[in-house]
Amino acid sequence: MINIAVLGYGTVGSGVVEVINTNQKHINKRAGKEINVKYVLDLREFPGDPVEKILVHDYSTILNDDDVKVVVEVMGGVEPANTFVRQALEKGKSVCTSNKELVAKHGAELLEIAKKNNVNFLFEASVGGGIPIIRPINQSLTVDHIDEISGILNGTTNYILTKMADEGLAFDTVLKQAQEMGYAERNPEADVCGYDACRKIAILTSLVYGKQVDYEDIYTEGITEITERDFVYAKAMNTSIKLLGRSINIDGTVYAMVAPFVIGADHCLIGVNGVYNGILLHGDMLDNVMFYGRGAGKLPTASAVVSDVVDAVKHRHTNIMTIWSKEKKVLGDINEFACGYFVRVKGAVSKDELEKVFGEVELVTVEDITDETAFLIKSMKEADFNEKIKSFELVNRIRTSLN
Amino acid sequence: MINIAVLGYGTVGSGVVEVINTNQKHINKRAGKEINVKYVLDLREFPGDPVEKILVHDYSTILNDDDVKVVVEVMGGVEPANTFVRQALEKGKSVCTSNKELVAKHGAELLEIAKKNNVNFLFEASVGGGIPIIRPINQSLTVDHIDEISGILNGTTNYILTKMADEGLAFDTVLKQAQEMGYAERNPEADVCGYDACRKIAILTSLVYGKQVDYEDIYTEGITEITERDFVYAKAMNTSIKLLGRSINIDGTVYAMVAPFVIGADHCLIGVNGVYNGILLHGDMLDNVMFYGRGAGKLPTASAVVSDVVDAVKHRHTNIMTIWSKEKKVLGDINEFACGYFVRVKGAVSKDELEKVFGEVELVTVEDITDETAFLIKSMKEADFNEKIKSFELVNRIRTSLN
Repeated sequence: MINIAVLGYGTVGSGVVEVINTNQKHINKRAGKEINVKYVLDLREFPGDPVEKILVHDYSTILNDDDVKVVVEVMGGVEPANTFVRQALEKGKSVCTSNKELVAKHGAELLEIAKKNNVNFLFEASVGGGIPIIRPINQSLTVDHIDEISGILNGTTNYILTKMADEGLAFDTVLKQAQEMGYAERNPEADVCGYDACRKIAILTSLVYGKQVDYEDIYTEGITEITERDFVYAKAMNTSIKLLGRSINIDGTVYAMVAPFVIGADHCLIGVNGVYNGILLHGDMLDNVMFYGRGAGKLPTASAVVSDVVDAVKHRHTNIMTIWSKEKKVLGDINEFACGYFVRVKGAVSKDELEKVFGEVELVTVEDITDETAFLIKSMKEADFNEKIKSFELVNRIRTSLN
Repeated sequence: MINIAVLGYGTVGSGVVEVINTNQKHINKRAGKEINVKYVLDLREFPGDPVEKILVHDYSTILNDDDVKVVVEVMGGVEPANTFVRQALEKGKSVCTSNKELVAKHGAELLEIAKKNNVNFLFEASVGGGIPIIRPINQSLTVDHIDEISGILNGTTNYILTKMADEGLAFDTVLKQAQEMGYAERNPEADVCGYDACRKIAILTSLVYGKQVDYEDIYTEGITEITERDFVYAKAMNTSIKLLGRSINIDGTVYAMVAPFVIGADHCLIGVNGVYNGILLHGDMLDNVMFYGRGAGKLPTASAVVSDVVDAVKHRHTNIMTIWSKEKKVLGDINEFACGYFVRVKGAVSKDELEKVFGEVELVTVEDITDETAFLIKSMKEADFNEKIKSFELVNRIRTSLN
């Protein structure tokens, strides 16, 4: 029997206990050992909940119990999670976490501590919820140079954008609905401003390059500026608008960003709608590979956490090699990154006038819209675009990834 | 340094050598050791090819060289592959293979021999080409009861069906084009009759249930009966027609089949077009998860094979637990399997007449088609359908999976 402790009895924590209880026999078979939840740590009380009997309020009870071999950290936030995880690893306990802030910030260090102590630090659930993505990158996509990651990494914003696309509603209206339905937090900033997706693309990029990508270095733009009218154009172009976390290697320089993109009808991620996530990777040998599933939610996320527990149990005395050093990966300057743009400027501007400034453009026209001019630019560096657009009155611009 | 040998210098075998040579540094870093191709086995000569110097014609050279730690079997077919693989495992060499016939037929036995000899038998490339699917099922989806697998598992048939859908062409016309372009074999039976997909769904189902699913037990229907007219209706219904390998657990009975299905616009696999493959799994905790990528092709398949080599090198002295026993998994009788149907019968038949026999149906009408009647049945057991349809002159019927 292997005893584990769960830190935090919130949505994911209670999911972890539920998943282990529900699929006990199956999980034990896969792990090769019986898994037993010995403690749940939470500051709150849960009177009447079956977990009451194993609830502790003091982390040292868990830390000092040598019977606890695996610690599940699902509290979220950097502290005290970081201290707790560090201590557990140093005590020779493996740690499984869903905590993207912690992993993005301290992943490399915690992996190093785990290795030193011949245990494991696993974080499958930190990106893409229930979608297997960390383990596939780490163990399956070991052959290719991955030169692109493009992911719909945040279910809340994808739900909002899908609703806006399907129902022609305004951002504020859909956000309010999403909050009422529990799909968005009361303070939605982390989602709608792209901060959540930013942590996740930082983790994926770090794993792909084996170096530390600091999320503070990643250009991040949210979806708050996307309007109903943008979707009117998007529909007319047979495209959609998605918030993507991307990192792209161009001739050895890696550009990373979170931003809304207009994506084309043939793009791999076009069918990823609602709360679903999708992560596309491009390798030099594999070409495109895509992973799709529920990027959040109690049971899918808990399932991913417990799959890490199974792995930790199977690898009790061997460190699973994960290449992610503390060495900083320097990212390219976003101003130097060239991509396509969908642009709206005020007033009626002729194609000629636009092309004098931007070179070749393609006009996008929609019946009944006459107070502005919309067009596509195939490819231009960010800095050049920002300079050239000064000749016009910008309404909105969204990057494009049409193929 | 770890020496490996490649059995078979065909498309995949030459791809394996190419992938190892091209991404050498990267692969060695991921493996933690330098990987060296010491031998290539093939009956043919390859004058002028760099492989000439390491080419051998006699397998015993490889088998008796204790320096060879990993054998890559990419010859295809059951024999002599089976004998060679068995001998290698018994000599303490790990084996990585892309050979779906071998894995479907002897997977359970070969895993047992590998375990006994504390080496590994790995077969990521046997299903879905470059798509990571075997390792995710084996190592990531360890928590869920997987109750459905639905996969577009054969690129050739998917290419043909996509072309038929997009261009309104007949099966024979597209098959001929596909043969000319090298997307279909001159003898296309294994693909178009569903035999290839059948091996693959047998492997996936065996892994999900941990028991031997004999492919001979799987109901298999190809795409040769699908006509232009079926696609006219499919388009009118905003659906598509895809060849699916499926296994579905209904109250503990597992039904497995390969057959064309009409799938709806919101189905996860609707966007999987051309030579791409997509594999959807449904778990009790995870809900839907989908894996997408190139299901065939020299470099993607070789990439998956080499990812197994990397894993074999990383696990030199530990057997990676794979649950797949020789115990036979008895499948449900396909006659008892209930699903929806899209049906075409000769002549003008009224809804009333149809509903007297089938219960509720939904008519599907297309302008200009008057010599037949098309309709949808929501759900009916195969046996019941086959009995009831006798009252009519059947033109074609395709199963449906609309959600």
